[in-house]
Amino acid sequence: MALVNILHMTTGHEDSSYAKNSLLQETVIQKAIPCLNHTIKGIASRDIFLDGCFKIADLGCGSSRNTLLVASNIIDIVIEVCKENNHKPPQFQVCLNDLFGNDFNNLFKLLPEFYAKLKREKGENVGPCIVSAVPGSFYGRLFPDKSLHLVHSSFSVHWLSQVPEGIENNTLNIYPAKTSPPNVFQAYAKQFRIDFTNFLKLRSKEIVRGGCMILTFLGRSIADPTCDDNCSLWEQLAQSLQDMVKEGLVRESNLNSFNLPLYYPCVDEVRDAIKNEGSFSLDNLTVFQVNWDPQDTDYTNTNDSIDLGQKHGRNTAKHIRAVTEPLLTSHFGNSINVVALFKKFEKHLAEHLANKKTRYFNILISLTKNE
Amino acid sequence: MALVNILHMTTGHEDSSYAKNSLLQETVIQKAIPCLNHTIKGIASRDIFLDGCFKIADLGCGSSRNTLLVASNIIDIVIEVCKENNHKPPQFQVCLNDLFGNDFNNLFKLLPEFYAKLKREKGENVGPCIVSAVPGSFYGRLFPDKSLHLVHSSFSVHWLSQVPEGIENNTLNIYPAKTSPPNVFQAYAKQFRIDFTNFLKLRSKEIVRGGCMILTFLGRSIADPTCDDNCSLWEQLAQSLQDMVKEGLVRESNLNSFNLPLYYPCVDEVRDAIKNEGSFSLDNLTVFQVNWDPQDTDYTNTNDSIDLGQKHGRNTAKHIRAVTEPLLTSHFGNSINVVALFKKFEKHLAEHLANKKTRYFNILISLTKNE
Repeated sequence: MALVNILHMTTGHEDSSYAKNSLLQETVIQKAIPCLNHTIKGIASRDIFLDGCFKIADLGCGSSRNTLLVASNIIDIVIEVCKENNHKPPQFQVCLNDLFGNDFNNLFKLLPEFYAKLKREKGENVGPCIVSAVPGSFYGRLFPDKSLHLVHSSFSVHWLSQVPEGIENNTLNIYPAKTSPPNVFQAYAKQFRIDFTNFLKLRSKEIVRGGCMILTFLGRSIADPTCDDNCSLWEQLAQSLQDMVKEGLVRESNLNSFNLPLYYPCVDEVRDAIKNEGSFSLDNLTVFQVNWDPQDTDYTNTNDSIDLGQKHGRNTAKHIRAVTEPLLTSHFGNSINVVALFKKFEKHLAEHLANKKTRYFNILISLTKNE
Repeated sequence: MALVNILHMTTGHEDSSYAKNSLLQETVIQKAIPCLNHTIKGIASRDIFLDGCFKIADLGCGSSRNTLLVASNIIDIVIEVCKENNHKPPQFQVCLNDLFGNDFNNLFKLLPEFYAKLKREKGENVGPCIVSAVPGSFYGRLFPDKSLHLVHSSFSVHWLSQVPEGIENNTLNIYPAKTSPPNVFQAYAKQFRIDFTNFLKLRSKEIVRGGCMILTFLGRSIADPTCDDNCSLWEQLAQSLQDMVKEGLVRESNLNSFNLPLYYPCVDEVRDAIKNEGSFSLDNLTVFQVNWDPQDTDYTNTNDSIDLGQKHGRNTAKHIRAVTEPLLTSHFGNSINVVALFKKFEKHLAEHLANKKTRYFNILISLTKNE
């Protein structure tokens, strides 16, 4: 089955669901607010939406409360900017996008309260504000020509359109890891280049001239992919799968053929792709880090105690389970003991984190559509 | 809880689901094709979409295969019309609307096959064709100003925005029935007038000048509502609820306070509302009948045998269960024995249908947005 029909966050409201494990995404969304502010002021100064309907798309929106948080943030800023310019606020159309398997029903159940709050806080003077959903891959067309003013995407563009081809020799690993052969690194980098270029080309058709795009995604802090700290997260998951193989709970051939469809580019790979594609100017690029354990707000570099390592391991494992479970069960079959796997993962993470505090490296870019 | 958050067709894929019981809706959709054909030719002749994106909304779309059938029919016709005019087909945006509780997830799972079929049948020359969902009541704003070319709605506009007020004396009945007091008929007629006028006013803001609307909904064949054959369907359901009261399975006070939020207007009520609201011209109004049992394609007036009556009763009850179950469980509580209720309903219907073949009376109108 095509990746586009499999990949989605864990549905529902259980403890293991994405809806209950999206604090990391929330942190990242909040980090983007100053950039959103600046970008929307820029759009307003070019006077391209103030008299009509401000059309926003959120790509890879997921189905937690975060999804509507992005819309709220953007609406707040636009109304504020209009106030500063003595302008009546525009109408709003918010288009939420994610893959076909995303739990949109869950999202839609939050809408009556979202609309009620908007009315309560902004009064009758704003609107209509209309939220719609556009299911499908952002590696295909999602919107009509020139129909969007602002595209936002948080924690999604690091997902590739497919697992790169020709990496059958990446056995025992599930991502380019320190022990992977060189062709694996090359294949992942090439797939990112193809996918990100395609993403820019598609969006350039859909965004109006002068419209903007704000993307936050995972990246790596150094050009040499073999020294990437982030890989170690997936090395721990690969290690946990290897433990399952040893215990006869997963077939080795199944592990050998499993690789993750995601890539953490370095800053230069991002800059180069934008420059070579040519439809957008890069207005701003910033980077920031967030601890693997999204609940850990301590950014000092002191080593964690063993107790803290266990806690952080548990939280990190829960978060990773919420974003990978459908992918794992689709490859290894529904019979895979996900609870056992993530218990092992938690243990490996705890050991790693007690030893070394590790962080996600995030890249935040804002782009403006050229002529 | 507001009706807008309760009302939806039965979700899922069970035997009692809407997805499995929507043959009646399919028949009605197919009946509208000649009218769609004529209307789309009219829109094309006014040259208002051919160079851009043809934007369609389907209001009260439900979540069965029918939903995408409407989109397919419209796309087929537009492409055919373009071919006749030696014009490249436009892009398509199909906006599916239903209430917040509608099973959109189910609908979205059908999309990969829908897109694949479109590509197979129409080739690369068509598109992009984008399907989106806009959850919410069509008695509120759903789309930005002047953003639609064609609005379609099948079997939905007979649902009211709320149960009319002041009908506490409609005890034992659940709809204006032959034994209802006169104020009940007046309250329902008034609620329809308010709701339908509001519906027209809202859509007139959303549809471009020269854009069209095609609505099919249930109506009654005669002006006098006390002689309406259709009421008898709801009289049988009321009778079944009364049986439940007698057996102690439903509290009488609960039955007394239950009324359906739907209304079957006569043709004159529809014409008057359109004329008084004033934003649309009525291009066409036709009526047609469909047997209560959607699988019964025999339109002669011979009496059914008892055997046939039973079969038709069963099919009719299944269909009505799929459209009313969430409403019933919301009012009577999840503990109501829905299976027992619909067994009784089936029996009453069988007796009625063995005696008299009864049909739904459908009104099909096409409207064009004025200046």
